[in-house]
Amino acid sequence: MKTINVGICGLGTVGAGTAQLLEKNASIIQKRTGFPIKVTKAATIDPYEDLDIDFSEITVTDSVDDILNDSEIDVVVELIGGDGLAKKIILDALDRGKSAVTANKALLAKHSEEVFTAAYNSPGFLGYEASVGGGIPIIRSIKEGFAGDEIESFSGIINGTANFILSSMSNDNKDFATALKEAQEKGFAEADPTFDIEGIDTAHKVIILMELAFNALFEFDQLYVEGISGIESCDIKLAKSMGYAIKLLGMARNSQKGFEGKVHPALVKSDSMLANVQGAFNAISVYGNFVGHTMSYGAGAGSHPTASAVVGDIIDIGRRLSSLGGEQVPALSVPLDQLSKQTILPIDETESQYFVRFKLADENDIQAIKKSFQAAGIAVQQLSDLKQSSEAAQIPFAILTEIVAEHRLQALVKDLNNLPFITHPSKIIRVDS
Amino acid sequence: MKTINVGICGLGTVGAGTAQLLEKNASIIQKRTGFPIKVTKAATIDPYEDLDIDFSEITVTDSVDDILNDSEIDVVVELIGGDGLAKKIILDALDRGKSAVTANKALLAKHSEEVFTAAYNSPGFLGYEASVGGGIPIIRSIKEGFAGDEIESFSGIINGTANFILSSMSNDNKDFATALKEAQEKGFAEADPTFDIEGIDTAHKVIILMELAFNALFEFDQLYVEGISGIESCDIKLAKSMGYAIKLLGMARNSQKGFEGKVHPALVKSDSMLANVQGAFNAISVYGNFVGHTMSYGAGAGSHPTASAVVGDIIDIGRRLSSLGGEQVPALSVPLDQLSKQTILPIDETESQYFVRFKLADENDIQAIKKSFQAAGIAVQQLSDLKQSSEAAQIPFAILTEIVAEHRLQALVKDLNNLPFITHPSKIIRVDS
Repeated sequence: MKTINVGICGLGTVGAGTAQLLEKNASIIQKRTGFPIKVTKAATIDPYEDLDIDFSEITVTDSVDDILNDSEIDVVVELIGGDGLAKKIILDALDRGKSAVTANKALLAKHSEEVFTAAYNSPGFLGYEASVGGGIPIIRSIKEGFAGDEIESFSGIINGTANFILSSMSNDNKDFATALKEAQEKGFAEADPTFDIEGIDTAHKVIILMELAFNALFEFDQLYVEGISGIESCDIKLAKSMGYAIKLLGMARNSQKGFEGKVHPALVKSDSMLANVQGAFNAISVYGNFVGHTMSYGAGAGSHPTASAVVGDIIDIGRRLSSLGGEQVPALSVPLDQLSKQTILPIDETESQYFVRFKLADENDIQAIKKSFQAAGIAVQQLSDLKQSSEAAQIPFAILTEIVAEHRLQALVKDLNNLPFITHPSKIIRVDS
Repeated sequence: MKTINVGICGLGTVGAGTAQLLEKNASIIQKRTGFPIKVTKAATIDPYEDLDIDFSEITVTDSVDDILNDSEIDVVVELIGGDGLAKKIILDALDRGKSAVTANKALLAKHSEEVFTAAYNSPGFLGYEASVGGGIPIIRSIKEGFAGDEIESFSGIINGTANFILSSMSNDNKDFATALKEAQEKGFAEADPTFDIEGIDTAHKVIILMELAFNALFEFDQLYVEGISGIESCDIKLAKSMGYAIKLLGMARNSQKGFEGKVHPALVKSDSMLANVQGAFNAISVYGNFVGHTMSYGAGAGSHPTASAVVGDIIDIGRRLSSLGGEQVPALSVPLDQLSKQTILPIDETESQYFVRFKLADENDIQAIKKSFQAAGIAVQQLSDLKQSSEAAQIPFAILTEIVAEHRLQALVKDLNNLPFITHPSKIIRVDS
């Protein structure tokens, strides 16, 4: 069984996360793929000893050439960013027949033709799922899931920093400067936040998605790009009073007139799903002519989510490399001999928070219900308002419990249903945990 | 260049949609894949003449054996449902080395071991993306996107009928019986709605997702299944008053105690994304140990969205079959020679609805602004409240316009900014269309 050997260029946030993931989830990955994936070399010019990675089988070097020249390495992971050395790494790796995986949206947005041509002419593969939307598998969804659709448009919150700032301006009533400063203090914005707040990072991702969705190449400079630094508190308040939230969107549309593509703050209806994307999360809505309206949501950045996307690409490449030897991706993800039969826990053995609705003849009976919960040792976290009552002699009333074992709650409610003042069987609804 | 020949068993809603998609999007699919995909045979026992499909190159038969025995057919699409003939079709197709694509969740939930074993032992492939979540590529996301993650839990609204009923009970204050009746009249619920409202359909999908997420086989009968027929209007009102919506959820968790799996109505926080999934839409939230919280949203059923998933699987299989001959899935989805360079429309040539925020010295100046919009022929759809004002001599005030050409709006606002009573430059924010 072939081992897939990986060389990581750059041990920053995402590089370290990738090595951690491949170490921590090694056994489940091997179960799924049938082959081991090992990081054999890592290139970094920064200190790396404190990274919570087992370096006993990883050779650390300060030169990416040590990785590119290593004929044992199958997949070169480029996580140093920028379009200088990063570009050389990817082109060299592909030129040598290796596969390359990158999270580098700036490079792909500005040099897509060169990079994709190198990938096309190489026996190796190029993975770039991590370049857009962190852990959200949006590249794969468009390339494979919606492969039969004509993509008409997409629209998304694809910069977590900008969304974090706009969320805190809206939820906590902060002005732009304060919100930016806090984002920097919490590590959600860089010391130089220009790329994030001026929409440039979003624009890089829009170009990648446009090329993928519309099957064409575009010039980055033709994109209209406007950031959020001009948004004032009063804009957010006025928009909210009119039923809208303000979000930084990256959008494109294949319209009758031509290809629209733009990045700018936009009003979105307060009850829409995009309006409810909070903090550093990302969400991308895609409209296809058959699939209709879809949305994908998840962490748009960060060490572990982005590493998840990088490793998804490495596994994909590993599966393809091993399929050249006759193997296939099994329908249920893992080879059949790796599938065990497992039992599902009976519901009695699970626990949950519970909503219990009673119908009472008299609202004074609430005291007796509260006492019963107390006697059973099940804490009540919230009582419903009583103004909900309408039907005569059937006063609907509900209780929210703490998290408690199902069998204890069921036993209590069974007892309660036998009490004389419970006029109708009470209804238990679990709260999603 | 090999043509991928498809035989469709069942020309109901999804079968007809699949044939329509492969016909309507034929050229874009061939551009992406490099090979044509043709429906050569379709089996149906119902009338089919009015289906808006060009049957000139499709042989219609009333026997699925005509498809199974056809050595020219590469992919057999099973869309008749149930676990009788449907099972025979899939097992036979795989046994003959063909690939099979199905949307049949009941079959997979109850006979997964048999079906997946047949797929594992066949040189053909099995696609079942359409079995869960209609057009949402959730199978692909778990199998490939989160291939590096240990999936800890998932939770989802995966039955559009039940969600439609609960949405209309909540939004339109209807009782269960009325909401069900309306769902039936609008075609969102079947004459016998048992599978949908009693959670059985959701349970089928939970088993498929559990097997995929947890890499194990489970017994359908061990799943706790509770439907929504016991939910009363007062439950929804009480839950709403306490900050929750009620949704029918399918959930599973790989917990310390074992595998939890259950289907039941659940309270979800009103401001959560799941609570905002309305009508017949589906959403599935997956939590992985590296990717964290993700969510996928889209149409959970229906002819065209489900056809999108079926065709995604057919294309995937076609790409694999053709890669055995040396081709690869290109990084940018289409082969490089199919990529043209395209221009992006200048922002001036686009149109949008606009939010324009002014800062006024005196609120009486609003009349002048309104007149200017009128003179420019740009209709104002909404004016903000004026109570938002706070800073002295800077009264924030906003207008929402109709959809209008960008250059016209920009010209007007430029003129307005020159008026003496506009104390600060006004801010234009586009409304997401």
